Amino acid sequence: MISRTLAEQWMARCLELASKADSAVSPNPRVGCVILNSGGVVLGEGWHQKFGDRHAEVHAMDLVRETHGDHVLQGATLVVNLEPCNHHGKTPPCTEYISKSGIVNIIVGMQDPNPIATGGLDQLTSAGFNVMSGVLEEKCYRLNEPFAFWQTQARPFITLKIAQTLDGCIATSNGESQWITGDVARLSVHTLRRESDAILIGSGTAQADDPELTVRHVSGTQPMRIILDGHGKLPPSLRVFCDSWTPKTIAVVAEGISPMYQDQLIDRGGNVIQVPSKYSHVDLPTLMNLLKDQFHIQSLLIEAGPQLASALLRDDLVDRLHLFIAPKLIGNGLHAFQNIGVTYLKECIKFKGHSWRPVGDDLLFTGYRHPFPPE
Amino acid sequence: MISRTLAEQWMARCLELASKADSAVSPNPRVGCVILNSGGVVLGEGWHQKFGDRHAEVHAMDLVRETHGDHVLQGATLVVNLEPCNHHGKTPPCTEYISKSGIVNIIVGMQDPNPIATGGLDQLTSAGFNVMSGVLEEKCYRLNEPFAFWQTQARPFITLKIAQTLDGCIATSNGESQWITGDVARLSVHTLRRESDAILIGSGTAQADDPELTVRHVSGTQPMRIILDGHGKLPPSLRVFCDSWTPKTIAVVAEGISPMYQDQLIDRGGNVIQVPSKYSHVDLPTLMNLLKDQFHIQSLLIEAGPQLASALLRDDLVDRLHLFIAPKLIGNGLHAFQNIGVTYLKECIKFKGHSWRPVGDDLLFTGYRHPFPPE
Repeated sequence: MISRTLAEQWMARCLELASKADSAVSPNPRVGCVILNSGGVVLGEGWHQKFGDRHAEVHAMDLVRETHGDHVLQGATLVVNLEPCNHHGKTPPCTEYISKSGIVNIIVGMQDPNPIATGGLDQLTSAGFNVMSGVLEEKCYRLNEPFAFWQTQARPFITLKIAQTLDGCIATSNGESQWITGDVARLSVHTLRRESDAILIGSGTAQADDPELTVRHVSGTQPMRIILDGHGKLPPSLRVFCDSWTPKTIAVVAEGISPMYQDQLIDRGGNVIQVPSKYSHVDLPTLMNLLKDQFHIQSLLIEAGPQLASALLRDDLVDRLHLFIAPKLIGNGLHAFQNIGVTYLKECIKFKGHSWRPVGDDLLFTGYRHPFPPE
Repeated sequence: MISRTLAEQWMARCLELASKADSAVSPNPRVGCVILNSGGVVLGEGWHQKFGDRHAEVHAMDLVRETHGDHVLQGATLVVNLEPCNHHGKTPPCTEYISKSGIVNIIVGMQDPNPIATGGLDQLTSAGFNVMSGVLEEKCYRLNEPFAFWQTQARPFITLKIAQTLDGCIATSNGESQWITGDVARLSVHTLRRESDAILIGSGTAQADDPELTVRHVSGTQPMRIILDGHGKLPPSLRVFCDSWTPKTIAVVAEGISPMYQDQLIDRGGNVIQVPSKYSHVDLPTLMNLLKDQFHIQSLLIEAGPQLASALLRDDLVDRLHLFIAPKLIGNGLHAFQNIGVTYLKECIKFKGHSWRPVGDDLLFTGYRHPFPPE
């Protein structure tokens, strides 16, 4: 068995491989796998690419066999960020495939949070494999937190994304906002989009920016596009209501509202859904449950203006914050957050497992609301 | 001569050594020096410790001689972040001292911006030394930007320091602010203080926090403490008006104002100065010129609330921003900046040569307003 330090290096590589997967794998987790020979030299790599396709371990083993022949797996080590599955789903159990391979060492990042698929580690340990587990466990968990959340929660895992200045402004006082952040940060938003099952915006953003909400500049599966339009007043000419991705559009209106674009959007394959309203706004918790139940959305990215961002925080509907910060000051501008329910300092909203990462001239703060290990 | 890459490594060490100096060297620059033998092995290190004392180069050479004897300097390399001086000031020219030492290679970070002291590099080159210059030049320049600024500008180099949440709040809406940032960030504020000739706060901060404005938790020279109190209404019981550091206190009032604490403060060795006011506030540009002319303040740290921070930016009186950012949200709180004179996005205040550095759980953004190389 290789050392823990080396195991962490290869696990980091598994996470890179896992990150190649976009929402095409949903609702499956994102998994990468590396196979090493008994000398610790890499024989092959794989990742889970699409729901229903081979799991990462099988993909890696198949590639090794094709390249080097069956025999090289004798005495090999398999490194994977998620516990190999132990059940018949769309594919046979990975544990079975591994058991017959000649592999002897298994290095795993985290246990499978899916109660149906777990048990693989116990199975492999009983079968006499050398097992090292919990390698880079928090990083593995955070990568698949939407998948873990999906097992126990009634709504999608929600990521709030905001781009602001150092002093927390997303626009000048007259609404000018293009562009706060630089090219590199704006490019990385497209990577966030490809990792999500759906992107949601409020009617203010839809009206002001008329965004396409497509994955551009990076390859990836187009997520669903959800437009909050409680009053149904948005114009039918908006891109999301008439471009070629309309089957991916979901307009959300309050109960009893039939917006002008309703027939047009449905004809083009899009969706209009009615949700009860509360204080004259669409009830967000109800909407979120519906997005899981009806549209099977596991990972939801919200690109929100101040009203929506604040409402989400008040309703405790933010699981992860991606905050891009540009090295600029505006002063009296439009702030990213308004009333988020904080009166005293002890009530302020804190983040866990956070990181600060330079992205071009800007910074990306990523923080999580839930602890690790999960409670 | 060693390679440029190695030269950069040793220059980084010179900058560490230079950073050991606090405001005791003011108005001299902060300088560190490393001496290597002909095999590239370090023989000794030195730094400029106090105004009037030995320069860094002489300190390092003396230490090498004391430890190893005169002969080891034959064929040696001297690395220093600032061009060796070429004039008789408080001490003889360093170039003279170096010329007689046996050293043959000179590696320098930046030219001396002081027109009287410069010329050392030309002198050494003419004398036949191998000279490598401009090594980590921007880092060297930023460390001594207050010193460079001093040569040409009529006011101190001003650093604005603020501690805020991710969303730009320095307090809740009811003024609660202790504490926004964590222990490590608060400790590093004391390092910023020891590097400054003076710390300035507004009357709002003085009243709300009654701070000592002392260097604590790290060793260092106590800077001057400047309290803006235009209306002269602050209570005489504030710490800065009656503790043991009162000789280091300067109260700034508007012309014609005699505050209650005036006699008490002067008796204790402190200062009260009157400055013309503009729009019922002390005129900041006039004050800054006076702080250079009368108190010889080269480097001024301002720990400002929103009113003062915004006024400084409107008057273009910020040269460097140190912004501590805590991974928290407050929403509708007290924002660090108000009207800073920005209406359109193209007018927003941008920073140059900026860095993002984690400090405990928090982040420290440092940005400069002036370009490098200076225009």
